[in-house]
Amino acid sequence: MQETVRVALDAMGGDNAPGEVVKGAVEAVNAKENIKVFLVGKEEAVKGELSKYTYPLDRIEVVNASEVITTEEAPVMAIRRKKDSSIVVGQKLVKNGEADAFISAGSTGAILVGGQLVVGRIHGVERPPLATLIPTVNGVALLVDSGANVDARASHLVQFAKMGSIYMEHVIGIKKPRVAIVNVGVEEEKGNALVKETFPLLKECEDINFTGSIEAREIPHGGADVIVAEGFTGNVILKLYEGLGSALISKIKGGMMSTFRSKMGALLVKPALKETLKTFDATEYGGAPMLGLNGLVVKTHGNASSKEVKNTIFQCVTFKEQKINEKIKALFAEKPEK
Amino acid sequence: MQETVRVALDAMGGDNAPGEVVKGAVEAVNAKENIKVFLVGKEEAVKGELSKYTYPLDRIEVVNASEVITTEEAPVMAIRRKKDSSIVVGQKLVKNGEADAFISAGSTGAILVGGQLVVGRIHGVERPPLATLIPTVNGVALLVDSGANVDARASHLVQFAKMGSIYMEHVIGIKKPRVAIVNVGVEEEKGNALVKETFPLLKECEDINFTGSIEAREIPHGGADVIVAEGFTGNVILKLYEGLGSALISKIKGGMMSTFRSKMGALLVKPALKETLKTFDATEYGGAPMLGLNGLVVKTHGNASSKEVKNTIFQCVTFKEQKINEKIKALFAEKPEK
Repeated sequence: MQETVRVALDAMGGDNAPGEVVKGAVEAVNAKENIKVFLVGKEEAVKGELSKYTYPLDRIEVVNASEVITTEEAPVMAIRRKKDSSIVVGQKLVKNGEADAFISAGSTGAILVGGQLVVGRIHGVERPPLATLIPTVNGVALLVDSGANVDARASHLVQFAKMGSIYMEHVIGIKKPRVAIVNVGVEEEKGNALVKETFPLLKECEDINFTGSIEAREIPHGGADVIVAEGFTGNVILKLYEGLGSALISKIKGGMMSTFRSKMGALLVKPALKETLKTFDATEYGGAPMLGLNGLVVKTHGNASSKEVKNTIFQCVTFKEQKINEKIKALFAEKPEK
Repeated sequence: MQETVRVALDAMGGDNAPGEVVKGAVEAVNAKENIKVFLVGKEEAVKGELSKYTYPLDRIEVVNASEVITTEEAPVMAIRRKKDSSIVVGQKLVKNGEADAFISAGSTGAILVGGQLVVGRIHGVERPPLATLIPTVNGVALLVDSGANVDARASHLVQFAKMGSIYMEHVIGIKKPRVAIVNVGVEEEKGNALVKETFPLLKECEDINFTGSIEAREIPHGGADVIVAEGFTGNVILKLYEGLGSALISKIKGGMMSTFRSKMGALLVKPALKETLKTFDATEYGGAPMLGLNGLVVKTHGNASSKEVKNTIFQCVTFKEQKINEKIKALFAEKPEK
């Protein structure tokens, strides 16, 4: 018999809450039997949305949370003060072992701070990174850390590499994922102080397939499976991915509409092009897990649709079934970093 | 009467040397009267190329240099040992006042090291940055530093901002260019230690139009005219621009060829699309100057065509005519940083 995976879902987080979030939860429990969802948020609003759907009643439970943390609020303050917010209440369910995972499309800062303060780190993990799947020409790569820890140190980056490698192998299914560190050149003497300190440490790791440095140019071309970066650099990469993608696509649309001839062509090209560009859209790949916590915390896009919510719930199922946290615990229990 | 601008051109640098370099020099002197070019490189090879063209003989001079620095060589060692290389000989012409500018498509590392060791810094300039024009949806932005100084300090970044602002205003012609620092968020409390230290210093600068932080997402959308970054981050941005652009374009081409219908459309769309994408191609915007040297040093793309060489020579003319170096000297003479 399959074990049930219990997911706490922030029903108030993101631009499309609670509508799309509730819809995604319903779609998930209707599609798979071993899922139980706790919808955390303002009871009345959530129940109002839920009443629109048919689903197995015992597999969705509403947990009331009277407050909402907005993206404008300073994260640390918000987590400390709003004890009855959907983020704090949802993360407490994970902390207390009542849920296996927490998903939110709300304030990234608050989710990250709550992950550390409410859920807590696995023993031995110094800094839990955010791990985001980014599209490449031939699949996806995991960018870790994509923004949780700016000013991270070399020992943190080594942990990012190890946890990212486990995630990529067991959740995404890439055997012996190629792990590379973001650098300004591929020669071993290249780099800033942090990369020069981290490089030999990664080279020594026997439990990962470290392939050396990767220049940012090679990331979209699939040059590595796990892209290790300090949080500032990782965040720049993630956001430039989004910005450059949308800028280029708007340029291309403009170009297609520039002449009568090209307008005719655009009509013919459109369906195929749409399908292709979808594979290069970061929002297609579910949420970004925060690795190394006592439980799973996943950040989804602020504008997540019901489909993304559903896929992120399925991602939590794989995470649990593949015993990712047990593997991370074993890693740091065997070889303590400190 | 117009003053003649004397440009030393590395005839041996880049993938297309000496052919395209020599051709670009000829095109430049044939197009404008106030240009004199020194073609620096192996005399026989350069003269062989030159013999193919017609041009005013007194405006192109060949300067022999028996050695070539390759991109594989360690830059500092190469500059010290290869005294008769085209890079060292060309930069010495600038150092000795025989040329106003040096252009090379060769080893970036060697050009940067030579800029510091051979040409030398303007008094008061701590770290000369590389300033690269990158395309945006509505024009160009100047990325400074795009890779010369990793591990730069806050005072360096302030100088990058000031020199970049002068360049953007007087060479590109954007009045009061908006200067922004690359950051992980726009709120003032956001950032890594370096950005947090630099931000208030930039805010105090009266001689630039500092508009605050910019997230990488907004760079391609034209969120600022001068993008200030430490060299590691700047290099990641520049290379991701290149890599993501080429990856997306190859995806789009693939998409257009995926069905019969879309293939027909592609034929109609192609000319307009090609024109549009050209405006988003970083190689269209000439070379990247190293700012703050006693003379001008410009790095062009390794695969520079004669057209890019010609445009870069014109860029040197504007740089001289707009007295950029005099403006930089005045800036640091008035308000010494140290």
